[in-house]
Amino acid sequence: MAERWATFGIDLHLDPTGPGLRRGLTDALREAVRTGRLAPGTRLPSSRSLAADLGIARNTVADAYADLVAEGRLTARQGSGTRVADRAAPAPPAAAPSPRRTPGRLPYSLVPGTPDLSSFPRAEWLRATRRALAAAPHDAFGYGDPRGRPELRTALADYLARVRGVRADPEHLVVRPGFADGLRLLCEVLRARGARTLAVESYGLDVHRDLATRAGLHTTPLPHDALGTRAQEPGTADAVLLSPAHQFPLGGALLPERRAAVVDLARRTGTLILEDDYDGEFRYDRQPVGALQDLDPDHVVYLGTASKSLAPGLRLGWMVVPPSLLPAVTEHGGLTVGVVEQLTLAEFLTSGAYDRHVRAARLRYRRRRDALVRALAERAPDVQVTGIAAGLHAVLRLPPGTERSVVQAATWHGLLVHGLSRFRHPDADVTPSDALVVGYATPPDHAWAATLEALCRALP
Amino acid sequence: MAERWATFGIDLHLDPTGPGLRRGLTDALREAVRTGRLAPGTRLPSSRSLAADLGIARNTVADAYADLVAEGRLTARQGSGTRVADRAAPAPPAAAPSPRRTPGRLPYSLVPGTPDLSSFPRAEWLRATRRALAAAPHDAFGYGDPRGRPELRTALADYLARVRGVRADPEHLVVRPGFADGLRLLCEVLRARGARTLAVESYGLDVHRDLATRAGLHTTPLPHDALGTRAQEPGTADAVLLSPAHQFPLGGALLPERRAAVVDLARRTGTLILEDDYDGEFRYDRQPVGALQDLDPDHVVYLGTASKSLAPGLRLGWMVVPPSLLPAVTEHGGLTVGVVEQLTLAEFLTSGAYDRHVRAARLRYRRRRDALVRALAERAPDVQVTGIAAGLHAVLRLPPGTERSVVQAATWHGLLVHGLSRFRHPDADVTPSDALVVGYATPPDHAWAATLEALCRALP
Repeated sequence: MAERWATFGIDLHLDPTGPGLRRGLTDALREAVRTGRLAPGTRLPSSRSLAADLGIARNTVADAYADLVAEGRLTARQGSGTRVADRAAPAPPAAAPSPRRTPGRLPYSLVPGTPDLSSFPRAEWLRATRRALAAAPHDAFGYGDPRGRPELRTALADYLARVRGVRADPEHLVVRPGFADGLRLLCEVLRARGARTLAVESYGLDVHRDLATRAGLHTTPLPHDALGTRAQEPGTADAVLLSPAHQFPLGGALLPERRAAVVDLARRTGTLILEDDYDGEFRYDRQPVGALQDLDPDHVVYLGTASKSLAPGLRLGWMVVPPSLLPAVTEHGGLTVGVVEQLTLAEFLTSGAYDRHVRAARLRYRRRRDALVRALAERAPDVQVTGIAAGLHAVLRLPPGTERSVVQAATWHGLLVHGLSRFRHPDADVTPSDALVVGYATPPDHAWAATLEALCRALP
Repeated sequence: MAERWATFGIDLHLDPTGPGLRRGLTDALREAVRTGRLAPGTRLPSSRSLAADLGIARNTVADAYADLVAEGRLTARQGSGTRVADRAAPAPPAAAPSPRRTPGRLPYSLVPGTPDLSSFPRAEWLRATRRALAAAPHDAFGYGDPRGRPELRTALADYLARVRGVRADPEHLVVRPGFADGLRLLCEVLRARGARTLAVESYGLDVHRDLATRAGLHTTPLPHDALGTRAQEPGTADAVLLSPAHQFPLGGALLPERRAAVVDLARRTGTLILEDDYDGEFRYDRQPVGALQDLDPDHVVYLGTASKSLAPGLRLGWMVVPPSLLPAVTEHGGLTVGVVEQLTLAEFLTSGAYDRHVRAARLRYRRRRDALVRALAERAPDVQVTGIAAGLHAVLRLPPGTERSVVQAATWHGLLVHGLSRFRHPDADVTPSDALVVGYATPPDHAWAATLEALCRALP
């Protein structure tokens, strides 16, 4: 261990080849801060020099520092390097509200995937729960149909046909605790039927790719060009995972001719299409594009969720499954969604409360998107907002080579935001481009202005 | 196709070697009844003669008939053979209530595993939901800790320590949607770590064995003797699944010296013990035996559930996981239980409502067990009730060779009840014995007397 480091009295037992290197370093630093061996205000060596001292990659040190900055144990400010945080939180910027700085969290977040949690309709949900509990037959509380309660499947089938153009027979609907669980189940069923490969979009969520990998499927990236995903070219993959209405995270809609082509291919080759319709309710400039599933319900599994329209914490999702796949899906996956939640959502849908909530949320998020576009046009003219006017996120194109520094600058301004690069499939054959994926629905209303301000300050 | 059968105009396309034979026959018969080709009142050939006609096993025909009797499409009465049911339901016995005869159901059930669903505490649950929704912080509605909400993990840790003697740190608690889902997750984690074999009790639920098989584990039966499961002899299995407090379905408690021996073995060999504590709250004659997990929390996973204490439909279960296994469990299984359900259960536990409900249920089920024992002593002296005075089920030992006919006779009396043989592991080295597994908690209060009456009539 190098001398410079030893002056901090840190006892590091790191295996420099192991995968736990970053965690080990983070833990050791955290412990040193906690016990006071690294006193408040102490300036840490630069990531470059500590990396050299320890004989490890600079990024590993930078990542460990970033984790501890995010936790509030270190501070990183331009010009003054990385220091151990003072016990007292710094004073908030004058014009901004003062959000609670909880350990492990930055005060502002634009991480995509979460709606404004402060707008969850608690009172309406409770009312629906009361009606659901009063109306439920006794046997609803038993081990039930692995597809879910008929009340909910019927309500969802009506809703999906009306709002998303899904051809949904309640008999083919399966309720699951969220999209990810449905995807896991489908991957396991596919693997058990001999499937080997799932084609995924070049940009997407690593947690979804990891789910497929754990289920024993290899993921390969679909080709990608200036017009979006070349969904019709999955190679020899057994199944294709797509977000056709609003690609996540890039934000485009799959071109009509490519929609038709991938469905034709599925029909011809037996490839299964998994349609991730995570935010299909939210389109701001015109009527949403209908679901792909409508083109061929025998070759497309439609997957939807209440995670964006209501809240992820409800853990409510649904799939419309082709009849040929249904027995395997229901046999492999027992019922895992509580009946009270199911019947409450059914009430929410049939009473119109769901429609009302989505309408109000659409208006709120549309205003935020408009404010984001206006603010950037004024204050960061080099940054271009891309993606259709839909959903809960936008992609901000940055000048080449600036993504990493912008993400870091955002951290300095108390803002957690993700760069586009973290969503790229490791094998994707695309020219990396610098961008931010901005989840503008994430902040609560009272923090929105301050969050937007922090973003503008971080941009070049 | 034989002539006799052809007179019914049934067009059967059966593959006599395939596993779908029983289902194919059942479907063909159901369709014939539905379309009227088999008119109400038509007497069907005996299972023996139809089996001979079709060149298939008699049991396959008997099973198909039994399925359709259970569905209410056929009737089977002693002396008059099997007939197509009349459209009108038969009049109920004079003294009995007249439960709705829904398609696919017999009016009475003693199938084990379900508490009295009519006693689910709806009003108390709604009150707890109201309090939970009022108190929840906004971030509870987001993607949360994969282990579950801290409020629930803390409440469960307190409860399990107090009532079951579990050494439960909230940090090691993981909330899952029921026992089966927890078992599936553990099996997948074990398989991913290289495990091959799960030892299970000679008698247990086939759905649990099937879960393990689907996760890629081979199940082997533990030896079994007159004193119960020889848990300490799992051979080379990587993990052992046990129900130590109340063996399901046989109803014994694992002997203290065998508890100690299997934990010693786990410590010595690294075998993991999975403790299924499905009904540990319900012991009627004395204080329940504490959890096995207490002996060595590093080698025992404790699994509990609200399915027996409250209702299976809630889909609420929990595991206390050894620290070494925790990262794999949380990484492999994302959060799948809704936050409203979680916070409601936390409220239910901390407010004392859970204790009150369990006390009331214990009293109700104890009375039922006593009534069962009294009725059998009087009306079926050849039948012996076995198993400790605990839980929601008892095992009724029958005279040798009578199990199948008693189950069938029960069907004739409108009662669905399971024989012990269906719980036996196919490879178990045990002398088959004739018995019924009677879930006395299953009927609603108003049907209990009639259900007991139907059982007594079916017994020899």
